[in-house]
Amino acid sequence: MFRSDRKFATALAPASVGNVAVGFDLLGHALRGAGDWVTARLSEQPGVRILEVTGCVTELPNDVAKNTAGAAVIAMLAGLLDGPASDSSGVGCKTEVGVELSIHKGIPMSSGMGGSAASAVAAVVALNALLAEPLPILKLYPYALAGEVVASGGWHGDNVAASLLGGLTLCHQNPKKLPLRLAVPGQLRCVLIHPDIQIRTAEARAILPREVPLSTAVGQNANLAWLLAGCQSGRLDWIRGALVDLMIEPHRRALIPGFEDVKQAALDHGALGCSISGAGPSVFAWFAADSQPLATIPEQATIPEQGTLPGQAPIPERAADAMVAAFGRHQVTATALISPVDCPGVQVLPA
Amino acid sequence: MFRSDRKFATALAPASVGNVAVGFDLLGHALRGAGDWVTARLSEQPGVRILEVTGCVTELPNDVAKNTAGAAVIAMLAGLLDGPASDSSGVGCKTEVGVELSIHKGIPMSSGMGGSAASAVAAVVALNALLAEPLPILKLYPYALAGEVVASGGWHGDNVAASLLGGLTLCHQNPKKLPLRLAVPGQLRCVLIHPDIQIRTAEARAILPREVPLSTAVGQNANLAWLLAGCQSGRLDWIRGALVDLMIEPHRRALIPGFEDVKQAALDHGALGCSISGAGPSVFAWFAADSQPLATIPEQATIPEQGTLPGQAPIPERAADAMVAAFGRHQVTATALISPVDCPGVQVLPA
Repeated sequence: MFRSDRKFATALAPASVGNVAVGFDLLGHALRGAGDWVTARLSEQPGVRILEVTGCVTELPNDVAKNTAGAAVIAMLAGLLDGPASDSSGVGCKTEVGVELSIHKGIPMSSGMGGSAASAVAAVVALNALLAEPLPILKLYPYALAGEVVASGGWHGDNVAASLLGGLTLCHQNPKKLPLRLAVPGQLRCVLIHPDIQIRTAEARAILPREVPLSTAVGQNANLAWLLAGCQSGRLDWIRGALVDLMIEPHRRALIPGFEDVKQAALDHGALGCSISGAGPSVFAWFAADSQPLATIPEQATIPEQGTLPGQAPIPERAADAMVAAFGRHQVTATALISPVDCPGVQVLPA
Repeated sequence: MFRSDRKFATALAPASVGNVAVGFDLLGHALRGAGDWVTARLSEQPGVRILEVTGCVTELPNDVAKNTAGAAVIAMLAGLLDGPASDSSGVGCKTEVGVELSIHKGIPMSSGMGGSAASAVAAVVALNALLAEPLPILKLYPYALAGEVVASGGWHGDNVAASLLGGLTLCHQNPKKLPLRLAVPGQLRCVLIHPDIQIRTAEARAILPREVPLSTAVGQNANLAWLLAGCQSGRLDWIRGALVDLMIEPHRRALIPGFEDVKQAALDHGALGCSISGAGPSVFAWFAADSQPLATIPEQATIPEQGTLPGQAPIPERAADAMVAAFGRHQVTATALISPVDCPGVQVLPA
């Protein structure tokens, strides 16, 4: 089953934006510049173990079956061995396979940046790189999803699909159906602002109403259709009109101090749209990249105040600065990340 | 403003399927084989008048402003003359323009086949053919929509867009935004069954709930996204999974006697999906056209009973027969129409 020439492999899976305003549990897109690394190492000792968790999150569950990377690998081994793991720890897999995982978290906990999905994706992709006959990437989706479910409590594939495939992805509500990477205009940029607060996905789900007005559901439907049409056709004007969450954001924004001001700052800087990334608290906005270079600093320039980058800076950079400043006015520290929407998914690092 | 060489023109606008199961007030597609003809004729006598209404509907409003074709032409003249009509009859348009309309209805009243939209579309396209500088087709959309609104009571563009542009179309909730014709697989066929009962659009709207479960709205969103992806990619399996109306059909089906049996008959014959056309009562189903020829009749063949066409007939034909028979079991007379989904929109007839 395994290659004889390689005993360990490391994969880097990117962070991602879930929901993308109009595709609740459905759309996601990858982010360049933040991700989780997982190293899978074959071991003589049977079973799946987590050796270490490093990086910006260290309080992950030690129980391998409750860790998204561990649960994903257990599911994958069970699938490869054509039978369920005989106990929840994975230690009792039919054969004597042993896998040790080292997880390096680059994605903050409960940030709305798809960290649990990224760890699960990186883990199965790292393990896959050790197989004598690696599976095609889409075949890894159900295993990564089986890992994600231990964190989110539901079969929500929006972050898993984006982290695995890259770019903008469409997943199914039915976990047995495979996701799709959609075409998007190359000039789309995402500005993601991560405020230093945590929102648990369970809390963000509990705040949602059980029912929504039919007119809201129909409006959300329309926005989703036009967003997809705009991405397909490269029509930024259609995307601008459609990247508006009528259904979820009105309820969840109460969980994010200063959300309205941050959103307004994005729109004031020409955002095509701005909403909550996944369950929050991160906020994302889409922009059309312009080709203006960063301004050279005039000789007489003073040190700029936050939120006042020179006017010639590319729009996403100026917007990011203004959005961070808006959080600051609400006493929330925040950091920005700027990424193409059409960026790569998971990658195996060179041996 | 008008051509000097042509005093009248006739346009044929096709019937259409509104909503298309998952795109309430949003998606529509044209149908080949049923339509409305409108002749527009320039007159010395100022104002817009309806000369005659013939065909399968004759009880249309005589008041030109309450007739969809008349209202559309009034709106178009007002737009061309760069000002609103000075009274609702259109008689008092700024200039001395006179237009007489003859309407031939090929689409039954209150059938859910987009008859009011087709009359409005045909009328503006016929008038456009008389202009010295005809407008591009998309510029006619707002005028046809202004006609449709007098029949439906709301700015619902799904039938207008389909009848105008042909094929599968996506419109906006905002009437100022223009619709789009979407790519669809050429082998898609629509079987439309028109039962001989009437449902008024107002009644069909009144039966809808004010609120829907969030999970239903999210599921409908998913189906819409996958239908669009399936049409774009030519993936019939995605279309099959997605052409399911979770939101509207469960409420409206009660208005159509035998609906469940008709739908089951379609699905039993391999339909990709089956739902209500527009506000009903017509029922539509999508099929993948197969290339099998109609069976030759063996010499010893007996006269087939309804619902038992020879097994070698193309699937849509056999399905249409079974769906009509299913209505029959509920004492409802019905007729069938089979059309490509990707069929032409409105056409101007040769002079």
